[in-house]
Amino acid sequence: MISFTIEAVSKKSKARAGRLNINGVEILTPVFMPVGTQGTVKSVAPWELREFDYRLILANTYHLYLRPGKELFQRFKGDLHSLMRWNGLILTDSGGYQVFSLSKLRRISEDGVEFSSHIDGRRIFFSPQEVIDFQLLINSDIMMPLDECLEYPVSRAKAERSLLLTQRWLNDSVFYWRASGRSDINSLFAIVQGSGYPDLRRQACEYAVDLDLPGYAIGGLSVGEPESVRWEMTDVCTDFLPADKPRYLMGVGVPEDIVKAVSLGVDMFDCVVPTRYARTGVAFTSEGKLNIRNSRFKYDFSLLDEGCACPACKTGFSRAYIRHLVYANEILGVRLLTLHNLFFYRQLMIGLRQGIIEGKI
Amino acid sequence: MISFTIEAVSKKSKARAGRLNINGVEILTPVFMPVGTQGTVKSVAPWELREFDYRLILANTYHLYLRPGKELFQRFKGDLHSLMRWNGLILTDSGGYQVFSLSKLRRISEDGVEFSSHIDGRRIFFSPQEVIDFQLLINSDIMMPLDECLEYPVSRAKAERSLLLTQRWLNDSVFYWRASGRSDINSLFAIVQGSGYPDLRRQACEYAVDLDLPGYAIGGLSVGEPESVRWEMTDVCTDFLPADKPRYLMGVGVPEDIVKAVSLGVDMFDCVVPTRYARTGVAFTSEGKLNIRNSRFKYDFSLLDEGCACPACKTGFSRAYIRHLVYANEILGVRLLTLHNLFFYRQLMIGLRQGIIEGKI
Repeated sequence: MISFTIEAVSKKSKARAGRLNINGVEILTPVFMPVGTQGTVKSVAPWELREFDYRLILANTYHLYLRPGKELFQRFKGDLHSLMRWNGLILTDSGGYQVFSLSKLRRISEDGVEFSSHIDGRRIFFSPQEVIDFQLLINSDIMMPLDECLEYPVSRAKAERSLLLTQRWLNDSVFYWRASGRSDINSLFAIVQGSGYPDLRRQACEYAVDLDLPGYAIGGLSVGEPESVRWEMTDVCTDFLPADKPRYLMGVGVPEDIVKAVSLGVDMFDCVVPTRYARTGVAFTSEGKLNIRNSRFKYDFSLLDEGCACPACKTGFSRAYIRHLVYANEILGVRLLTLHNLFFYRQLMIGLRQGIIEGKI
Repeated sequence: MISFTIEAVSKKSKARAGRLNINGVEILTPVFMPVGTQGTVKSVAPWELREFDYRLILANTYHLYLRPGKELFQRFKGDLHSLMRWNGLILTDSGGYQVFSLSKLRRISEDGVEFSSHIDGRRIFFSPQEVIDFQLLINSDIMMPLDECLEYPVSRAKAERSLLLTQRWLNDSVFYWRASGRSDINSLFAIVQGSGYPDLRRQACEYAVDLDLPGYAIGGLSVGEPESVRWEMTDVCTDFLPADKPRYLMGVGVPEDIVKAVSLGVDMFDCVVPTRYARTGVAFTSEGKLNIRNSRFKYDFSLLDEGCACPACKTGFSRAYIRHLVYANEILGVRLLTLHNLFFYRQLMIGLRQGIIEGKI
């Protein structure tokens, strides 16, 4: 079961604060979802995510389908939550983006896409039905339909053709999902494409809205387009998506992008940035990003961010020590930076929500 | 301040159970020390070690001297405990072993050893004084003197010459340590060498015992010698080391080795095995080692060890999931196996101690 209620709407922007209730778990929006591509948020244990009160994470259909694979879930008397020992919610990406960015030797047809696994070259066929089936098998709380994710820029003709395909696949997905008898438990969102063409985005929204789904995702952004295009497209989409349904901007972004997108009326986010940047030695702080590898931190015994209450700062680990760990390739360095960044993102979202409720954003 | 009291002595073997009190922290012996070579126990946070009630870990002089380096500690208004945020005790290896196993272009003289850093090739000189100085600088609770660690086997003539050098260095170390005015806080142990020659081992023990130190380490074993030699040498050493001082067998070992050495009267152990094996996918269990990479665990949804109370087993992570994490190169896999193995070693030591007290070992 999914329900979404708007608690506050900004007078200064399109921002809104809401409550998303999914299968009995309440998510306050705007919300950021940590990315657990392969069935684990990189370097973090489930109990650490819960300590930050994260309740919804993202996992990836493409990656999990390839490894550990369908057979493991078929044999397992449990779902992805239970395999990961995660007692929160899971949203799964459809794999459309990865099929187009990672796999080799793709062949697209009306029925779906055939591709080679980037792990072992094995041939795999994703149809809209197969992608829904797998997400039902792993019991994803929010499922995404197979879509075609385009690079940027593309010609209008290509964007139109691609959008038509994505819409046919969406249609098939919705039909199959409704017939599954599990649409109450496993919600399906639409993904709105349309590249950088405002009228295609509008048409994509209207098409999706007609299908009356529990939520709507804006896809095909953060793929190399100029910022102005990204925000124009987001703006168009949030204009034409229903006010009473959650809106999810896929794969976005750095903190500034999230702030911007919230002001445009987006409710949900996922991004590899807090975890991936941590692995390159970057920490988000109240004064901006800092790259701990920089030599100016060699003898800097202050915290990553003074006043931060994350486990790394609260325990008192210094920049100099974390820098040492990073240079010595010690896992604890990645762990501390990841915890710090995920805590930063959590605080960012709490702050944005509060700002909306208090009428400041 | 260091004190050691024997609580129980076995009637069946030379095993003993004791209490080692160092600077106000009580350590129950026999004790296993997790290895934190570069100032962090690999993949583990300090709060996780404390959760297992580990109170004493090992760090390495050679590695810390090279990186983060002496200057960092000179500028830092704190010690290694404070840098690592570790509120337990730290024993530091002297670096003798690493100088001989890792560094290149060594030149040994009466005064010490000159070598090239394995990180950047920089020339470094370790004298007995410099090694003590560095351990005082980082405020090690138990310090080790510079020694020469020989490969196995070596000729008797070489073993004798080497032992003489180690003893001269020990003598210098003790003199310098006593003069430092910090011998109450920073305890110095002797390291007993002598290769595989029982009479040299005996002589090494007698020489060291004459210096009346807070504890004694047996070095130069686990370097490729046959098991029979290892235990014969350990047996000789524990015969000639004082009963009322702690005995530390350096770098040993797998669980069976620890059980054996405890029966020969050893009180303290360190070994990379629980953490290093975890990184290769090996878990210690009540039924022996298991390599999680093995295909027979692909669909094995049972715990690493049924009935184990470590965070991995208690949370319910299955072999199949941990195997997936290991193959997907996910840090959580290493973390869960490391926690499991360190918990196993902790339980092993608790069990051995209990066995001695109850007269079963």
